[in-house]
Parts: sequence; C-alpha cells; structure tokens
Amino acid sequence: MNERPLILITNDDGVWAKGINELTDALKGLGEVVVFAPDGPRSGMSSAITSAIPIKYALLKKEDGLTVYSCTGTPVDCVKLAINEVLHREPDLLVSGINHGTNVAICVNYSGTMGAAIEGCIFNVPSIGVSLTDHSADADFSESCRLAYELSEIVLKNSLPPGTYLNLNVPNIPNVKGMKVCHQADGRWVNEYMCSTNASGEPVYWLTGSFENADPGNQKNDTWALDEGYASLVPCKIDVTDYNYMDQLQSLIGK
Amino acid sequence: MNERPLILITNDDGVWAKGINELTDALKGLGEVVVFAPDGPRSGMSSAITSAIPIKYALLKKEDGLTVYSCTGTPVDCVKLAINEVLHREPDLLVSGINHGTNVAICVNYSGTMGAAIEGCIFNVPSIGVSLTDHSADADFSESCRLAYELSEIVLKNSLPPGTYLNLNVPNIPNVKGMKVCHQADGRWVNEYMCSTNASGEPVYWLTGSFENADPGNQKNDTWALDEGYASLVPCKIDVTDYNYMDQLQSLIGK
Repeated sequence: MNERPLILITNDDGVWAKGINELTDALKGLGEVVVFAPDGPRSGMSSAITSAIPIKYALLKKEDGLTVYSCTGTPVDCVKLAINEVLHREPDLLVSGINHGTNVAICVNYSGTMGAAIEGCIFNVPSIGVSLTDHSADADFSESCRLAYELSEIVLKNSLPPGTYLNLNVPNIPNVKGMKVCHQADGRWVNEYMCSTNASGEPVYWLTGSFENADPGNQKNDTWALDEGYASLVPCKIDVTDYNYMDQLQSLIGK
Repeated sequence: MNERPLILITNDDGVWAKGINELTDALKGLGEVVVFAPDGPRSGMSSAITSAIPIKYALLKKEDGLTVYSCTGTPVDCVKLAINEVLHREPDLLVSGINHGTNVAICVNYSGTMGAAIEGCIFNVPSIGVSLTDHSADADFSESCRLAYELSEIVLKNSLPPGTYLNLNVPNIPNVKGMKVCHQADGRWVNEYMCSTNASGEPVYWLTGSFENADPGNQKNDTWALDEGYASLVPCKIDVTDYNYMDQLQSLIGK
C-alpha cells in the first residue's frame, strides 16, 4: 500500500493538555495523524466505558495530515468510537499520552492513558501508552516526545505481537539514557486517604497516598529503570489468565 | 486466631441490587460480613478511581455479624476506602458481585465487579468476582449463590497465590454442572454503537455491540464452559507484563 500510516492519538488528560499536543506535533512526520481525545480530564478512568448515557464527538481541526476531534466519553470510549464510527480505515498505530504523571507498576491498572492503549490492543492495533514523571500542566515533554517518536517508528516498522501493548514511562530529566525493557514493579499504594470536612460538616475522603515498592532493588522493574535515568518500557498482555495456577485450582475445586 | 473470617463484599451494580443482597445472605454463614458498595450503579467502571473530588460513605445497617455501608465512589474506591479507613482488620476474603450480567473473556477489563476483585488482590486479600449471565434486575441467583459459597469456602481454607484473583461466571440455568477452570477467551466486541439523535438534533452514540469470539471451539476457555452448562472459573494475575516478549523487544530498541 502507498498510503501513509494512520496514527490514532488519544489521552486521559483531555484534548487541550500540553502532553497530547506536543505528542501530536512530534508524530506528524510519521504519518496521517487523527487525534480523538476526551474533551476534558479523565485521569484514573482505567478502562471505564460509558453505557448508561450516550456520547458524542466534535471536529476541532482539519488540516493537511492532521484531524483533531474531542469526545465526551472516557479514553476507552474515544478509542471505540473513533475506530467503530469515525476513522475511514484501521489505524496502523495508537499512541496514548503523553500523560502528565507516572504510570508505572500497578498504575497501569488505574490509568486512563493505559486504558486507551489496552483498547487499541483489543482492536489489534499496535498500541503504546506514554507517560512523563511530571504532573504539572507545563511539564517539559521534549525527551518524552523524542522517545515516543523513536518507539513509534520501531513499532510501525515491526508491529507488536497480537494481544501485547507497550507502557513507556519517561523520567523528568534533561538527558534520558534511553529505553530499558522492564517488567511491572511489584507493590501497592498505602495511606490512600486524606480526610477533611465538607460544607455540611460531614467527613469526606480525598485520594492521596504513596507507593510502597515491594521489590525496590530489582534491576528489571520499571521503577528501578526510572530511578536510574532510563525510560521504562514494559510490554503488557491483555490476556490476564494465570495459566500456571489453572491445574492447582482445578484440583482444589475437584472434578 | 479465634476470630471468625472477615469477608468484604462489594459490587458494581450498587448496594441495593438483588445480586449483592443474595450473595450477602449466602455468605453470612462463613464469617463476619461487611458490605461496602456503591450507592448506585457503577457498571463498566473497570478499575476507575476518584481523585478530582472527595468521596464519602454511610452506615446503612449493623446487626450481629453483618454491617452494610454505601459509598459515593467507584467499586475500586469502595475497596480502597473500606480497607484504608473503615475495617478494623484486614479482610480474609473479598467477594465482588453477584453481577447482573456476564463478565467473561475481555470483559474482565471493563467490569467494575472485576475492578473491585483486582483491587482486593492488590491489597493481598484473596479476591473473587462473581457474575451471572442474566442482566435482569430480578435474576435468579440461587445457583450462583451456591457456587459462590462453595468457592468462598475453598478460598478461605486454601487462600490464593499472591497477585492472583478469581473470575467466576455462572450460566443462567437451573442445574449448573459445576465449576470448570478456564482461561480467558480470545475475542472482542464489534458493531459497538447505535447512533441516535439528541433533543438538539445532534448525533449521539449509545454503546451496544456483540462479542466476536476468536476461538469458539476451545474447550479450555470461559465462553465455552458457559455454553456447556458449567460455571467458568478463570484465575487472573495483576501483573500484566508480557515476560515472553521482553528479550525480543529489547533487541528491537537496541542497547
């Protein structure tokens, strides 16, 4: 085929965020880019879908090689609606991000950025989530754009195994050493709530907390790579079956 | 210890749903039960978390061996808030459900029922999600309660490997043949939107669609088990790393 690759870009910080706009500028050279992203912040939406109410979308911009839409749904809704109803062909690549904030370890589970990448993978579109370890609205995305471009080029050329997507996290430093392939660090969030009082005097709970790494010295996990000045790159699977435990479980339940 | 096991029950259909109430009645004999569930429907919320606004909870009922709370958050928020702030000790078991509707194959990714089970697993609480293949509000939960009880008893006795949770789906038939350990079926949803018009004349999109099974004949997958009259039981992992692809990916990116 002679067509340029079709690249679908989305995120969970919303279509106006700096991260998605810098990513879009960075990837325009690689193909025809369609941005289809939430109309506002959808952080922490994981793979949530909207089914009780309808969603809609709007065209924001159309220029040579770039079309931008906003959508009232979640990141996963954006991917579903774009592929089902809006795009004129299957994308060759989906990139979600660049997220304002880290998505390593178990955060892949809560992240709307990664929810969108998972959804792309379910559609058999090679998919990458990209996050920067800086939450601020005016974060410096230059290194993460450089690595997102490099990785996108590799994935466009080599594709990915069916059912596998990528989680790229970039440290907020001037000269990132490169990408290091890692596994997801083991650990969990602790002390997750700050209690305060609402205007009626009732206790209310704000999500906060800190990440407790269960395996801090492991040189193959994503938190270690970031600490060492590398971008962490974790290949992830949509099939979550624990194949190793199937036989033992069958013997426990009998039959 | 001489204490009775502490069982945390939650769901995504909300604290008033028939499924969670029948499950609660069924499990009361196994230990001290705390229900901590959303105050209304939260279907399709996956592992979404609430961080931009605070959440709160309310005590609905307290009687011998049973306490019931409602919470304004998502299923994952419920698990987090209960364990961080409300329960007086770590639960020995978490059961999420019984969901009104199937959660097999890739639905584990979108389901709030399974989001809560994943969250329990992240807290190292042995966790089970239970779903019935019937969406109706007045579904018959007798067989799914029987199997949820049987499985809960087994898990309380044997625990689960760290990082592994269970996804039980029960067919809506009178005499389920028993539980069959399965892997997640491969496949995806297709034709996912119905377009209609809102009051302003704009097109809006309602999520719908049908599941396209990529591996229908496979006697080890969960959709097959349900079709054959078994309850499907899939052990799942919170670590989604694709370990088999790490070396190949490292060679693609060089270094």
